[in-house]
Amino acid sequence: MNKELRSWSRKRDRKQSKLSGIEPRMNGKFIDVSDIVSVLEALIEPGAKVVLEGDNQKQASFLSQKLLEVDPAKVHDLHMIMSSVSRPEHLDIFEQGIAGKLDFSYCGSQSLRVAQMIEDGTLKLGDIHTYLELFGRLFIDLIPDVVLVAADKADTAGNLYTGNNTEETPTIVEAAAFKDGIVIVQVNEIVEELPRTDIPSSWVDVIVKADKPYALEALFTRDPQHITELQILMGMMAIKGIYGRHGVQSLNHGIGYNTAAIELLLPTYGEQLGLKGKIARHWALNPHPTLIPAIETGWVESIHSFGGEVGMERYIAARPDVFFVGKDGSMRSNRAMCQVAGQFAVDMFIGSTLQMDYAGNSSTVTAGRLSGFGGAPNMGHDPRGRRHASDAWLAMNEHPSELSKGRKLVVQMVETYGANKKPVFVERLDAVKVKDASGLAITPVMIYGDDLTHVLTEEGIAYLYKTDSLAERKQALAAIAGVTPLGLESREHEVSDLRDRGIVAYPEDLGIQRRQAKRSLLAAQSISDLVTWSDGLYDPPAKFRSWS
Amino acid sequence: MNKELRSWSRKRDRKQSKLSGIEPRMNGKFIDVSDIVSVLEALIEPGAKVVLEGDNQKQASFLSQKLLEVDPAKVHDLHMIMSSVSRPEHLDIFEQGIAGKLDFSYCGSQSLRVAQMIEDGTLKLGDIHTYLELFGRLFIDLIPDVVLVAADKADTAGNLYTGNNTEETPTIVEAAAFKDGIVIVQVNEIVEELPRTDIPSSWVDVIVKADKPYALEALFTRDPQHITELQILMGMMAIKGIYGRHGVQSLNHGIGYNTAAIELLLPTYGEQLGLKGKIARHWALNPHPTLIPAIETGWVESIHSFGGEVGMERYIAARPDVFFVGKDGSMRSNRAMCQVAGQFAVDMFIGSTLQMDYAGNSSTVTAGRLSGFGGAPNMGHDPRGRRHASDAWLAMNEHPSELSKGRKLVVQMVETYGANKKPVFVERLDAVKVKDASGLAITPVMIYGDDLTHVLTEEGIAYLYKTDSLAERKQALAAIAGVTPLGLESREHEVSDLRDRGIVAYPEDLGIQRRQAKRSLLAAQSISDLVTWSDGLYDPPAKFRSWS
Repeated sequence: MNKELRSWSRKRDRKQSKLSGIEPRMNGKFIDVSDIVSVLEALIEPGAKVVLEGDNQKQASFLSQKLLEVDPAKVHDLHMIMSSVSRPEHLDIFEQGIAGKLDFSYCGSQSLRVAQMIEDGTLKLGDIHTYLELFGRLFIDLIPDVVLVAADKADTAGNLYTGNNTEETPTIVEAAAFKDGIVIVQVNEIVEELPRTDIPSSWVDVIVKADKPYALEALFTRDPQHITELQILMGMMAIKGIYGRHGVQSLNHGIGYNTAAIELLLPTYGEQLGLKGKIARHWALNPHPTLIPAIETGWVESIHSFGGEVGMERYIAARPDVFFVGKDGSMRSNRAMCQVAGQFAVDMFIGSTLQMDYAGNSSTVTAGRLSGFGGAPNMGHDPRGRRHASDAWLAMNEHPSELSKGRKLVVQMVETYGANKKPVFVERLDAVKVKDASGLAITPVMIYGDDLTHVLTEEGIAYLYKTDSLAERKQALAAIAGVTPLGLESREHEVSDLRDRGIVAYPEDLGIQRRQAKRSLLAAQSISDLVTWSDGLYDPPAKFRSWS
Repeated sequence: MNKELRSWSRKRDRKQSKLSGIEPRMNGKFIDVSDIVSVLEALIEPGAKVVLEGDNQKQASFLSQKLLEVDPAKVHDLHMIMSSVSRPEHLDIFEQGIAGKLDFSYCGSQSLRVAQMIEDGTLKLGDIHTYLELFGRLFIDLIPDVVLVAADKADTAGNLYTGNNTEETPTIVEAAAFKDGIVIVQVNEIVEELPRTDIPSSWVDVIVKADKPYALEALFTRDPQHITELQILMGMMAIKGIYGRHGVQSLNHGIGYNTAAIELLLPTYGEQLGLKGKIARHWALNPHPTLIPAIETGWVESIHSFGGEVGMERYIAARPDVFFVGKDGSMRSNRAMCQVAGQFAVDMFIGSTLQMDYAGNSSTVTAGRLSGFGGAPNMGHDPRGRRHASDAWLAMNEHPSELSKGRKLVVQMVETYGANKKPVFVERLDAVKVKDASGLAITPVMIYGDDLTHVLTEEGIAYLYKTDSLAERKQALAAIAGVTPLGLESREHEVSDLRDRGIVAYPEDLGIQRRQAKRSLLAAQSISDLVTWSDGLYDPPAKFRSWS
C-alpha cells in the first residue's frame, strides 16, 4: 500500500509544453491557416486518442483534410474516434499510417471501404457504437487527447457560435477541455460579436479560420415526389393502426421515405381520422422539411433536434414556438440530449432496415458493408431504466400484473422486397458473416427482435408485442412477409387465427382500402410544395430544386 | 388541411412582455435581492411548468425560499419539476397552493411527507423518474416555462461559473433558454472576471445575488470508522468474486458503507490479490473521499462525476490526471453526461437497496415513503442499446450464440437484515402498496430482478446471470438469505448443487476466510486518515471532524 510518488498533472504538463511549442505561431487562440499542418504535427502525439468531428451532417472537413497532410513520421498510429465516418480522408489517414485504430458510430458512403480495410489489416477496429455510448465513453475509457471540431463563428476572444448545427460539438469539446485534452476548432468566420455563445472561450485552445466553410449535408431532406403509393398505404396503416390505436404522443422518425410519407399524411389522412391533437405532438427529430405541412396545420407542438438541416434555418427561426431557438433567433441542436430524450422520453421509435431475420432481429450491416447504426439502437430499444408512464407505453403491457410495466414502441417499417429487389426477411442476417470478417466481439445487430413491438409492411402490421413465443413471432412476421420465402411459409389458418387475435392486421382489418392510397393524399407532392407551405421560408439546397 | 393563422412566437412574446414588466427593476440582467419576490410574481404565470433546482447536493435554496413568499393569489397551481425534493419549502409551496403538481426523481428526507401529501390530495403526482428520463422530458413534453437555478459566480456581463458543482444546471438552463423559457439564477457572488464560463450570458435572463450561498450537502462522504467487519467481508467477496473474476474495468458505486468498504479495500486486499491495474480503472462517480487511498496508490485512472463533494475541492484541483478539471483548476461535473456514461459506458453498477423480493426486484420505496430513485434505475439496468463490447460485459453471456451479446453487471449488495432489523428479502415489496396509495401507474421498482446479475450478502454471492428460471433465481437468493424467512426455505442439497454449478459462492468457495475481515484491512480507518492520505488537501466538513 504505497503512495505513488508522481506528478498528478502529467497530462496538463504535456499539454502546456505542446502549446508552448506553438506559441510563436499563436495570436491569442488563433493561428493562421497556413500553419495548421505544422500545428497539428506539434500538438498530436503518436498513438493519441483523437476525436475528429464527423457528425451526421456537419464535418470538420478542413481539419480532416489537413490531418491527411501531416508527416506520418511525426504523427502516426492515432486512435481515431469519430461518430460518423463520412469522407474519403477519414479513411485515407489509415492508409497513410497516420491513424491505426477506429471507434465509430455511423458510416454511410464509406461502409464498403471500412469493411475492406479491416480485412486488409489497414485499420484496426475498436468497436461500433450507438452515439450515446460513444459520447459516454469520452468521459470514461476513451477520454480524448485531442479533438478536432467545427463551428460557424468565433469572436476575437475565442468564444464559439455553432448555431443550428450545434450537434455534438459541445459534448466532444467538454470531454477534452476538462481532462487536459487539446481543443482545436475550425471556424467559418471570425467576428467581433457572436449572435450567442455556444461554447465558451475557456474551453478552447486553438482556433483556425478555414479556407472554406465546413461541409454540411442535407441528410434528412426527402423529396415528396419520390414517395410511392405503397409507402402511402403503409403510412396510412401506421397512422391508424399504430399512432392512433395506441395514442402515440411523442416520437422519433427514421430518415426514410416511409416515415416522410407519414409526416405528409398527418394533415390529410390523420385529419380525416380526427387524430389532430391526439397523436404525434412532441418530436425528437432533425428538422425534416416534410414535417412543414404538419407544423403549419398545427399538429406539432414541439421538436427537439439532434442536428440542423440545410435550408431549414429561416423557417426554424420563424417558428420558435415549435423548435428550440435561442434569443439570437437560430436553433441550438444537441445530439447528446436529443438522444437522451429519444431514448427515454418518447413513446415511439419508428424506422427502417435492410434485413430482418425470422426472429425480428434487424441490421443495416449487409454483405461487406460495415455501416454502423448511429442512433437507431439507442432509440430502437426498450429503455429498461424508464420509470415514468404514458398511455402508449402502458398500452404495450399485455399481461398486467403487480410489477409489470409499460414498454417503448419500437416499430420497423419495411417493404417485403427492398430497394435491391431482395427479400427483407432473411433466415440469417449478413451481419453474422460481417462479424467474423471484422473480428467484432458480437454480431452488429441494429435492433434486436425482442425489443421490437411492431413490424409494418405493405401487407399489414404484425403486433409483435402481443406474441408469446419465438414461434408465434415468426408466424406473425410470415403473415406480413408477402411472397418472400418467409411469407410463403405462412399458412392460411394460422394467419386467420393471428388476425382474429389481433396479432396481425391487414389493411382491410384496419378499415383501409388500398385504393385510397393515392399521391394526392400527400399534403405536399414536391419540394416546391414544401416551400409554398413554409411561406417561402424554406430554402431547399440546389440539388432538390427542379425549378430555380 | 388548413394552415393555422397564428403567431408562431407566442411563448417568446409572452416572455418578452413579462421581462419588459420588470425592466425598471433590472440593472442589465441583475436585480436587487429585495426585488426577488415581486420579480417571481411578475415572471411566473399560474399553472406554469417550473424547474426548481434541487440537485442531489446543490440546492437553489434562496430561490426556493423566496418562491414560498409569493402571493398565492398571483402565483398558483405551478407544475413543479425537481430532480431532487430535499427541503421543507419544496413541499411547503404545495400546502400554500403556490404549486399543484410534482414531477421528480429523488426525494430523501421528504419522502414520508410527499407520500402523505399525495394521499391528502395536497399534491398531485406527475411521475417518478430516473434523472436522465426527467432531463429528456425537459426537451419533449415537460419543456419548462421558468427555471430557478443556482451558480457560484456571475460576471458583470451575466456569464455564470458553476465550478465543481456544475451538476445539472447547464442541462436545465439549456431546455429553457432555447425554448423561450425564463432563466432565473441565484449566485453567491458577482465578480469582474470568472475563473471560467460554464453557462454563457446569452442563455440567462435574470440574476440575483442571494443573501447567503446556496445550500450544499456532503451526501457522498462516508466516515470509515462506521464500516463494520461484515461490510469488510462483503467487500472482499465483491473484489475477489465479482470485480476480479469478471475483470471489471469501469464502474459506478452506490453511496453506502458497503461500497465505501470496497473503495478502502482496493489498496490493501485488492493489492494482495494482484488486481492493481486489472480492475476498477475508470469510474463514473461523485468524488467519494473514501476513494482517496485508491487514487493515491495508483489504482484509479479516471473519475467523471455527476456532482461535486464538499471538502474535496482542493484535492480534486491537485489531481487533474484523475478528475475532470478545467484550465481554471476546478472540476466541472455534469450529471446528464455522467448518467449517460454510467448507463452505457461502464461495465458495472453496484449499489444497495432496502427491500428485495424473491424474484430479485428491489426498491427503496418502503411503507409510506415515496423516496424516488435518482440515478439507480438508469445505471442499474442492462442498456439494450449498447453495442460495444468489453471483457466483463461479454463474461455475462452464459449461452453464446450467433446473435447473443454481453450484459451489464448489475449488482446489489445487502445485508440479510437491514438497518431496521427487518429482513431485506420480502415476499412482496412495500412499493406495491405505495403504488396504490399514490395513484402511480406502475409499481415504483428501483431495479428489476431480470436486470440483476449478482446479489451479494454477508453469506455469499448469488450469480443470478447464470440462473435459467425464476425458480432457480429464487433458490440462489435463498442460498444467501441467511436466517431470513427466504433463507429458511433453502434446502441443503439445492444449495450444494448451486455451489457446484457456480451459481452460488460462499466465502470459503472464494478462498476467503471470515476472520480475515478485520478493520485493520481498511486503507483508512477514519476521516482523519483520509486527510492524511490526501496530503492535507481534503477538507472534511465540520460534522465529519472529530478532531480540530
